[in-house]
Amino acid sequence: MVCIALDVMGADNPPAKIVQGGVNALRRDPELSVLFVGSLAAIDQVLIDLPPSMRSRATILPAEQYVTMNDSASCVLRKKNDSSIVKAFEAVKAGEARAVVSPANTGAMMIAGYHVLGMIAGVSRPAIVTLLPTKEHGKHLILLDSGANVDCSVSYLVQFAVMGSAFAQTIFDLALPKVGILSNGSESGKGTDLLRGAANVLSNIDINYVGFVEGRDLADNVADVIVTDGFVGNVVLKTIEGTVDFVIDAIKQVAKRSMLGAIGLKLAKGSLKRLFSEELNPSYYGGALLMGLNGIGIVCHGSADETAIANGILMAKRYVEKDLIGLIDQQMNGLDFAGFV
Amino acid sequence: MVCIALDVMGADNPPAKIVQGGVNALRRDPELSVLFVGSLAAIDQVLIDLPPSMRSRATILPAEQYVTMNDSASCVLRKKNDSSIVKAFEAVKAGEARAVVSPANTGAMMIAGYHVLGMIAGVSRPAIVTLLPTKEHGKHLILLDSGANVDCSVSYLVQFAVMGSAFAQTIFDLALPKVGILSNGSESGKGTDLLRGAANVLSNIDINYVGFVEGRDLADNVADVIVTDGFVGNVVLKTIEGTVDFVIDAIKQVAKRSMLGAIGLKLAKGSLKRLFSEELNPSYYGGALLMGLNGIGIVCHGSADETAIANGILMAKRYVEKDLIGLIDQQMNGLDFAGFV
Repeated sequence: MVCIALDVMGADNPPAKIVQGGVNALRRDPELSVLFVGSLAAIDQVLIDLPPSMRSRATILPAEQYVTMNDSASCVLRKKNDSSIVKAFEAVKAGEARAVVSPANTGAMMIAGYHVLGMIAGVSRPAIVTLLPTKEHGKHLILLDSGANVDCSVSYLVQFAVMGSAFAQTIFDLALPKVGILSNGSESGKGTDLLRGAANVLSNIDINYVGFVEGRDLADNVADVIVTDGFVGNVVLKTIEGTVDFVIDAIKQVAKRSMLGAIGLKLAKGSLKRLFSEELNPSYYGGALLMGLNGIGIVCHGSADETAIANGILMAKRYVEKDLIGLIDQQMNGLDFAGFV
Repeated sequence: MVCIALDVMGADNPPAKIVQGGVNALRRDPELSVLFVGSLAAIDQVLIDLPPSMRSRATILPAEQYVTMNDSASCVLRKKNDSSIVKAFEAVKAGEARAVVSPANTGAMMIAGYHVLGMIAGVSRPAIVTLLPTKEHGKHLILLDSGANVDCSVSYLVQFAVMGSAFAQTIFDLALPKVGILSNGSESGKGTDLLRGAANVLSNIDINYVGFVEGRDLADNVADVIVTDGFVGNVVLKTIEGTVDFVIDAIKQVAKRSMLGAIGLKLAKGSLKRLFSEELNPSYYGGALLMGLNGIGIVCHGSADETAIANGILMAKRYVEKDLIGLIDQQMNGLDFAGFV
């Protein structure tokens, strides 16, 4: 049995909907237990209907205080140290749960995680890891940092690369993951000073560095892991999201302009819907790992629904079972790159 | 009659195909003349078949030397100052043509343009302007810099904003174009120091600055002009390209997995093909303006076909007729932002 702490407060959706996501996860995996952290009334209201076999795998950690989406991340430590997200990490620290899943304020989650659990030795800053679909069915691209650190140093990028490589080995069973740096051209003279500096280090350590990768090649499996700073990563992720949304919109317009197009798209609607709402929808995968913390924290989309929350919880459980943190720690401390950065 | 110089050398496609693009433009616009710059034999071979009414609007400027895609941009001045791209700009300087269109080496085109024509007063660096489709049919987003300047200062970004606004006024007849900065969140506290610095200047000068815009909102007409540095602009542009390509691929996979999907997509094929090969295909629009040069230079995609070349030429002619350079110059020198940057 693996217990995952679910922060049910402060998301775009009401707590009851988040709790329902936890219940869906319990239904899907009999080896899972969930620690629901948040408003007792809201949690009770959903759990009361559970059959005993599932209710026995649900525990509650009451927390009425929570961080809102508008709160600054730093207020967590100053004013909200009894909040649901802090209590969820404290439960992990105390051994009552093995990972935290939250669809609330990402910045607050990072600060709470850092404050309560600390970092893996040798890691300066946590990075957000996003999984993107690729042209090979079922294969994902690992993109990091996709939003945590706007300003990065060479050493941050190198750490991201090492952690990303360890992640790909552990979670996707790749023996020698290909690691690339996102740049404005694949030639080694492209990029910024920062990126060329990181490329230089990665070429000299024991990692399968494949060079600069362009935005147009992200889905082509040129690399398994793509490293970038949190500013570019965030912009790229949202650009992909916006482009998929735009193409869906454009396809709908086609149906309005052409009778044949309309009939054809109507027939293909079921298949296209699955494609766009599942395969091409990053939030469907559950969430993004805050990598570098000395424990597993999964941040779900602020508007995550029951399915996304359940997927996030099962993702967290999988990472726990694979001992992801232990293996990242081993990689980080087995590689000698101190001399390079 | 407006004469446009077409550099037919050094692209991915052979000169004859580029020349054919020029011929297609001549056919589409009787008020156009084209100065073909490049290998005399290659140009002659295509023009020899033209009817006299079109042949009279075609002139040739022989240039056997040219810059390859692998040449460094700086070699233009050192070793290749008799190349087709340099001669094309010299023809503009001499008044024999009004603009240059080239599908060859972008960096070489920038250097040649800068060297021969110089810059608009007050502009430090040329920026690449790309037009992107939006959800509103026929309306484009103006993205700059989409690749020329990897490292930007606050003053470059402010100049791009002012030039982009003048472009939107002149070419799309917008009275008060909305100008945004691409960032990792719409709140003013987001972004890097550089972006917040540029935002501060833009808030204080006579321009319709609307704030930070996220990657997911690019197609939503939140802004008419989006300013970014050439690194992020290039990555974003290629990410959009790659995502559209990926979605097309995913739709084809759907047809393989579902019979109903296959029939539907077959019926809608004509409409979808037009959507993907024209409306959503940036290279279909012809090319990207190198903005800031004291003259019009349009860079086409290296693999531009006859249609894209013809579109690039007609785009250049439109910019000439609208007196784009004159109006950018007027804006740049009418706005007092020297005190801010």
